[in-house]
Amino acid sequence: MFKQRDFKLKSPFPWAVPVFSFVVAITFSGSLCAAQATQDRPNVIVFLVDDMGLMDTSVPMLTDEQGKPKRYPLNDFYRTPNMEVLASRGIRFSNFHAMSVCSPTRISLMTGQNAARHRTTNWINPDKDNRGDNGPKDWNWKGLNRQSVTLARVLQSAGYRTIHVGKGHFGPRDSEGADPKNLGFDVSVGGASIGAPGSYYAEKKYGKDTQRAQAAVPDLDEYYDSGLFLTEALTREAKLRVTESVEQGKPFFLYFAHYAVHSPFDSDARFASNYLNSGKPKNAQAYATLIEGMDKSLGDMLEHLQKLGVDRDTVIFFLGDNGSDSPLGEAHNVGSSAPLRGKKGSHYEGGTRAPFIAAWATPDNSRAVQKRMPISVGGVQTQLATVQDLFPTIVQLAQVGSPEAPVPKSFLPESHVVDGLPLQSLLNGQADPNRPQQFLMHYPHAPHRSDYFTVWRDGDWKLVYHYFPSKTSGGSHYQLFNLAADPFESQDLAEKESAKVREMVSAMIIQIKNFSAVLPMDGDGRELSVSPPNS
Amino acid sequence: MFKQRDFKLKSPFPWAVPVFSFVVAITFSGSLCAAQATQDRPNVIVFLVDDMGLMDTSVPMLTDEQGKPKRYPLNDFYRTPNMEVLASRGIRFSNFHAMSVCSPTRISLMTGQNAARHRTTNWINPDKDNRGDNGPKDWNWKGLNRQSVTLARVLQSAGYRTIHVGKGHFGPRDSEGADPKNLGFDVSVGGASIGAPGSYYAEKKYGKDTQRAQAAVPDLDEYYDSGLFLTEALTREAKLRVTESVEQGKPFFLYFAHYAVHSPFDSDARFASNYLNSGKPKNAQAYATLIEGMDKSLGDMLEHLQKLGVDRDTVIFFLGDNGSDSPLGEAHNVGSSAPLRGKKGSHYEGGTRAPFIAAWATPDNSRAVQKRMPISVGGVQTQLATVQDLFPTIVQLAQVGSPEAPVPKSFLPESHVVDGLPLQSLLNGQADPNRPQQFLMHYPHAPHRSDYFTVWRDGDWKLVYHYFPSKTSGGSHYQLFNLAADPFESQDLAEKESAKVREMVSAMIIQIKNFSAVLPMDGDGRELSVSPPNS
Repeated sequence: MFKQRDFKLKSPFPWAVPVFSFVVAITFSGSLCAAQATQDRPNVIVFLVDDMGLMDTSVPMLTDEQGKPKRYPLNDFYRTPNMEVLASRGIRFSNFHAMSVCSPTRISLMTGQNAARHRTTNWINPDKDNRGDNGPKDWNWKGLNRQSVTLARVLQSAGYRTIHVGKGHFGPRDSEGADPKNLGFDVSVGGASIGAPGSYYAEKKYGKDTQRAQAAVPDLDEYYDSGLFLTEALTREAKLRVTESVEQGKPFFLYFAHYAVHSPFDSDARFASNYLNSGKPKNAQAYATLIEGMDKSLGDMLEHLQKLGVDRDTVIFFLGDNGSDSPLGEAHNVGSSAPLRGKKGSHYEGGTRAPFIAAWATPDNSRAVQKRMPISVGGVQTQLATVQDLFPTIVQLAQVGSPEAPVPKSFLPESHVVDGLPLQSLLNGQADPNRPQQFLMHYPHAPHRSDYFTVWRDGDWKLVYHYFPSKTSGGSHYQLFNLAADPFESQDLAEKESAKVREMVSAMIIQIKNFSAVLPMDGDGRELSVSPPNS
Repeated sequence: MFKQRDFKLKSPFPWAVPVFSFVVAITFSGSLCAAQATQDRPNVIVFLVDDMGLMDTSVPMLTDEQGKPKRYPLNDFYRTPNMEVLASRGIRFSNFHAMSVCSPTRISLMTGQNAARHRTTNWINPDKDNRGDNGPKDWNWKGLNRQSVTLARVLQSAGYRTIHVGKGHFGPRDSEGADPKNLGFDVSVGGASIGAPGSYYAEKKYGKDTQRAQAAVPDLDEYYDSGLFLTEALTREAKLRVTESVEQGKPFFLYFAHYAVHSPFDSDARFASNYLNSGKPKNAQAYATLIEGMDKSLGDMLEHLQKLGVDRDTVIFFLGDNGSDSPLGEAHNVGSSAPLRGKKGSHYEGGTRAPFIAAWATPDNSRAVQKRMPISVGGVQTQLATVQDLFPTIVQLAQVGSPEAPVPKSFLPESHVVDGLPLQSLLNGQADPNRPQQFLMHYPHAPHRSDYFTVWRDGDWKLVYHYFPSKTSGGSHYQLFNLAADPFESQDLAEKESAKVREMVSAMIIQIKNFSAVLPMDGDGRELSVSPPNS
């Protein structure tokens, strides 16, 4: 049923020290074949939207002081009726964090590891090292490879049919990581080294007929000149692959990573008229059409699951991979993600907070697979969670390594450090007091809107460490925000609360050391150190 | 209320002899101002679709032997739900004829004259004389001008607000006829000398950003990069102009001439997925999306009239301007317009028969304006009618030249010959035995799919005169069809029914002379004559 491969499974990070980590427990129970192992397993869909921020939806994701969803103007601008349906069937997270750019998030999702650990701390340029002038020379710009432990490989080895549709961006051009099939996916459509499509248009052959032919989306030749917007073509492919899996009687893991809503902001003509009178700039209108087209894809998939009769056995994790890149307002102020400050690439909440909704496609408490992971219907979770939590959540849900679903030894290293924590305890919408509320967002690069920074989040406190003076930080090395009192980061408390800064910096330094994080370098190529403020 | 203009209104065709003609009767009653003349007049919309054939719709336009609508496979391929609504509110014609290419039809519509009379017998190439190697050198390739009597000018002078939206194609580049505002339109959006759009896509600036920039659609700069398909942008403009007219309290004449569904066959992404599994070629799928986008425009306009509360006072004439140009099958066989033979440009029924539906936007027999021109609700008319009938129909409906709605003398020549006949007697769905059933379709050119021909239609009989031997006519100078016995033109009876041929050719020669039609020329530049067959 599956081909056994002879991986050399040394841990790629032998120096790794677990930090709030979850080590995948594996129980070996001999040679049960994968076919047996597939029974009674839920199907899993990770529905990942590129560059979609927390506010790019008609679903109110932020909450008021009582923890109830609160609408803001952007919720009235965007149209995502199918996300509304999904949110009504499951739980939305108001405080879900990713990295502030895409490859780090994607590799965290696939490995369960913090970017400081897996070291792909910046987005991967397919054709060159993208560390930047002062970026760390030992960052992992090659991304994943055939030896990497990935969520797809774990599920594949446990008998899942693993399907990759959409953007890969796990490694540079012609590397092993450029092809999702090297990373544990049985099937791959549209995935490559590229981080953005050449074009969303079929008449431009999704980029092949443009000056950005290097970024043409592969595998879609049959849709050329079909008139189908890229989002729609990928949806058709995803539906086809899901149908195949159901026909084969295998549970499936669908990693459906839309290129939308990443630039280029090609307007999706199906929805353009909805925004024409919005008073927003044309590129922001086009962005909104990308959002609505993505939302239609979600609706189509929900409908498809229902038609196939697998909706009660399928869980959907919907998320964005970083803050919004919507072309509204100035990058460091309130605009793109209003009322949050900042956008994709920045260290503000608008840069790293992403939408997250988890739901059974059709909730049914009586269903055995759903009993294994109950999800609040229509709930809201305000406690912090992060993208690295997906790996342990799904591994636990799929009972990988359990007596019922053993994983052959050769498919997992004896110890793969996972920094994320299973989300199971948060999915009922209640607080989990035992769960740490900390997150290190390490970004030792500068190609984006903020330069060389590390964010350390601990509860309501947020410290931003800037390695260099910059225009936007006004030369200051620290910013400190209290997100409970000041959720939209209008007041930098670094000077006023110097004791808190010292405390936070000390904790951050410990995290950086624990991860053996790579750091920015000075003009002479020496690694910088993180220093506490002068007392 | 209107500016009086000092036209020199000599008849442009002083040699014209009326042939089945209707001379516009004008009653002069002094200097009543136009404002008074506008009261109690219906609004008129001519909804003209470029290159749309009789079968390019889900409305069955052909009938069975009992005169009931009959579905054919193409009716199941295309999707035109709003045409279905329109047909259910009014009457469809199964036997409505245009010329086989666009400019001749459009100028017949505007003037009420047969193309043999107005002499624009071929489509106008904006940049050069398009007569072809053996075409008549005196054909009117300059089209209309500021002196031309046009339907728009007649209605404008009678107090209508006249609106042109879409394709003009009434004259070559930089000629007077290139600008609809020179032809009696108060307002013009999108009209020029071009016969096809450079592109339907906003992101290509409707052609400006293509190699066909000469064919860019004008007046739509504000829609550039909006994502709005050309059809949608024009619809918005048309709705805006209609709103303005209603606000001004003036009756309006809207000539809404969609560029759709003329090539280029740019797929309208809003509808592309509806045809993906049709098994049809991609360009035929794209063509179907153009049809469906045009149909949405019709629906949007119907809805808009209702919102404005003028639907009971507005009549819609929906029509195509020639046979289908759908990329299905071979031009001279059954394909593009199946089961009809041939397509745009050819002398077969698929070349000249076009869809025609007349309806009050909302039927209401108690309404005064509707009483003036009752239209069968859901009816079918099988008697022959033609595009030149629109002019007298609308002039009569608007009571132009009546005591209630006088037209200042300076706006109409004393005698403008109109070859068309008012459709009023056919709109109830019954036969009109007093109405002639003849039509001369004169095409002395060869750039299209048939070469140098004239069709003479008399009742069920159809004669095709070929001026030269051609590949498709197999060297024969005549074709004869009996459309009652052989509606799809599979049997050429010319040899078998030579007496009928002689009779038909004789009648055709009289028509050609009456119109003073220009004829093809031989290699030495001498005009050919039409000769009866050797007896």
